[in-house]
Amino acid sequence: MEIPIGVLGLGAMGTGLARVLLGRAHPVTVWNRTPGKARELVAEGAILADTPADAVAAGELIVVSLTDYDAVEEVLGAVADAVPGKVVVNLTTGAPDRARRVADWARRAGADYLDGVVHAGPDQLGGPEATLFYSGSEPAFSAHRRTLEQLGTTHHLGPDAGLAGRYDLALLGLWYEAELAYLNALALVGGAGNPALDAFATFAGRQLGHVARAAAETARQVGERRYPRGPATLAEHAPVLEQLSRLRSAAGLHHTQLVHLHEVVRRRIDRGHGAEGLTGVIEELTVPIRPASAR
Amino acid sequence: MEIPIGVLGLGAMGTGLARVLLGRAHPVTVWNRTPGKARELVAEGAILADTPADAVAAGELIVVSLTDYDAVEEVLGAVADAVPGKVVVNLTTGAPDRARRVADWARRAGADYLDGVVHAGPDQLGGPEATLFYSGSEPAFSAHRRTLEQLGTTHHLGPDAGLAGRYDLALLGLWYEAELAYLNALALVGGAGNPALDAFATFAGRQLGHVARAAAETARQVGERRYPRGPATLAEHAPVLEQLSRLRSAAGLHHTQLVHLHEVVRRRIDRGHGAEGLTGVIEELTVPIRPASAR
Ligand SMILES: NC(=O)c1ccc[n+]([C@@H]2O[C@H](COP(=O)([O-])OP(=O)(O)OC[C@H]3O[C@@H](n4cnc5c(N)ncnc54)[C@H](OP(=O)(O)O)[C@@H]3O)[C@@H](O)[C@H]2O)c1
Ligand SMILES: NC(=O)c1ccc[n+]([C@@H]2O[C@H](COP(=O)([O-])OP(=O)(O)OC[C@H]3O[C@@H](n4cnc5c(N)ncnc54)[C@H](OP(=O)(O)O)[C@@H]3O)[C@@H](O)[C@H]2O)c1
Repeated sequence: MEIPIGVLGLGAMGTGLARVLLGRAHPVTVWNRTPGKARELVAEGAILADTPADAVAAGELIVVSLTDYDAVEEVLGAVADAVPGKVVVNLTTGAPDRARRVADWARRAGADYLDGVVHAGPDQLGGPEATLFYSGSEPAFSAHRRTLEQLGTTHHLGPDAGLAGRYDLALLGLWYEAELAYLNALALVGGAGNPALDAFATFAGRQLGHVARAAAETARQVGERRYPRGPATLAEHAPVLEQLSRLRSAAGLHHTQLVHLHEVVRRRIDRGHGAEGLTGVIEELTVPIRPASAR
Repeated sequence: MEIPIGVLGLGAMGTGLARVLLGRAHPVTVWNRTPGKARELVAEGAILADTPADAVAAGELIVVSLTDYDAVEEVLGAVADAVPGKVVVNLTTGAPDRARRVADWARRAGADYLDGVVHAGPDQLGGPEATLFYSGSEPAFSAHRRTLEQLGTTHHLGPDAGLAGRYDLALLGLWYEAELAYLNALALVGGAGNPALDAFATFAGRQLGHVARAAAETARQVGERRYPRGPATLAEHAPVLEQLSRLRSAAGLHHTQLVHLHEVVRRRIDRGHGAEGLTGVIEELTVPIRPASAR
């Protein structure tokens, strides 16, 4: 018999989560502020709770999927009496510091807490294409790993509840910045309305592929703080970046990112690291993060 | 019998070019400001010319590989009498407008001109890993295509001599900006000295892979100036970008690129394109380029 689950929030995502768990034979009790949204799920076998506390009481694992952390704090604030001994899995997207605040609240309330992020649309849930990151309580993750894996490809990142949100931000920002980098490049070779961009797209895809394929090696260098020269040294990169920024600017294109990179490269050279590779500039970008043990 | 070739400039690249052509049974006549650098090539069968004009006179195709365009203009200026009827292939890296200026000079001097860029180290020349872009005279490219293909994977981009340099700048800028995007992401998840970046590198590689795999489709949209919504509309991207910028800034990390992207997204929404996808922001990044026919 699969463990009973309470679901708080039946937006597109909450409905999708409840549906996958129902399909895997869990008893699922749902609650939504607007109860009408539960109709289909009830027809599929879910139990509709009158209050969020009833849904929490009925479940062993409590899945939370609301619009944002304000809604999470409001709804959880009303169920404090029902949560002791439960495992709360919050799959609402939000800032790392908010996740930590909810983790603190859960600890005080006597619940185990996992903060999660869904990298998928509701329709992909339950398949391997859906990736879900979790951070927070390791015992809770171990105990419920099998159930969580029913939702998609599953990763636990560490005990700091803010980590899942931090990964999410970092990956989202990476996507946006890589998209912008590519659009900048397309703009430079003729931009909108140029019908002859096919060959360029092939080379650009390869260029992005170089960065993607080197991702693990780059991360290893960063982890070890050892920065071999790679394709060129910082001293060799500096004049190229300077020229590139100048040419971009002469073409009337946005170039602050290249100027910024040139600045951090120069700063790193000035500190005596001119013979290292480009990866070393991370030393000039890094801010300390609160270690997991501080939470 | 392969066509005779003159090579001006025996740095690492010029030496590599001469060596591959010698290996393919071309008669190769070389010139270098510092003649001592020709020693090995002469042992391998090259003829050393006393003056650049002698090297030009001995070749049908003239390969130029010097430090920069100042050197190119200086050296070519001294061989004007020898170039009529020759094809000059300049593989020196530089700015698109300098390439156009040399193309103008060549036309006036009575030579055909190709401007090229080598994407490879000297040791890769002659293999498929070496990619060479050319732009400029199409008749010259057609006539010498087979010889040029001996140097590596070969592409002619169009009659505007500045195109090869422009592609080079765009691809180089893309690499730098994608690297910086990834380093920004690594900094956000803990940065230098964090030994647990393996999982993140895997996800980041996938994220970059999304952009790479969509490169052709994105270029098609840009070429046709049609911007379907894709994973989300601009109206949906705007608040995400705003939140992302705020969180990056709160973490003490560089975020001007996300702020810039948010601005152009907002501008595009204000012009009535909120239902389109992210690619549409290229309309706010584009500068007109002089059409090839103007040259
Ligand atoms: N949809 C996706 O494709 C997707 C993908 C990845 C991540 N996510 C994340 O998953 C979470 C949920 O997404 P969604 O698309 O399902 O969101 P949604 O459509 O906005 O649904 C949000 C749910 O939150 C409830 N809610 C909002 N404010 C509330 C409050 N103050 N008190 C009680 N309930 C409240 C809504 O109840 P009512 O029905 O009464 O309004 C609804 O059930 C979000 O954090 C989203 O970023 C979504
Ligand atoms: N090396 C690479 O891996 C690589 C890769 C891609 C593209 N490239 C490009 O290929 C070109 C050549 O590269 P390289 O590495 O061979 O460069 P390099 O080592 O700087 O060699 C440059 C050549 O230019 C000559 N030269 C410079 N100024 C001159 C002047 N005023 N008059 C006459 N000759 C002059 C030098 O002559 P001396 O010997 O007398 O100094 C030398 O033969 C550059 O544009 C570079 O950006 C190189």
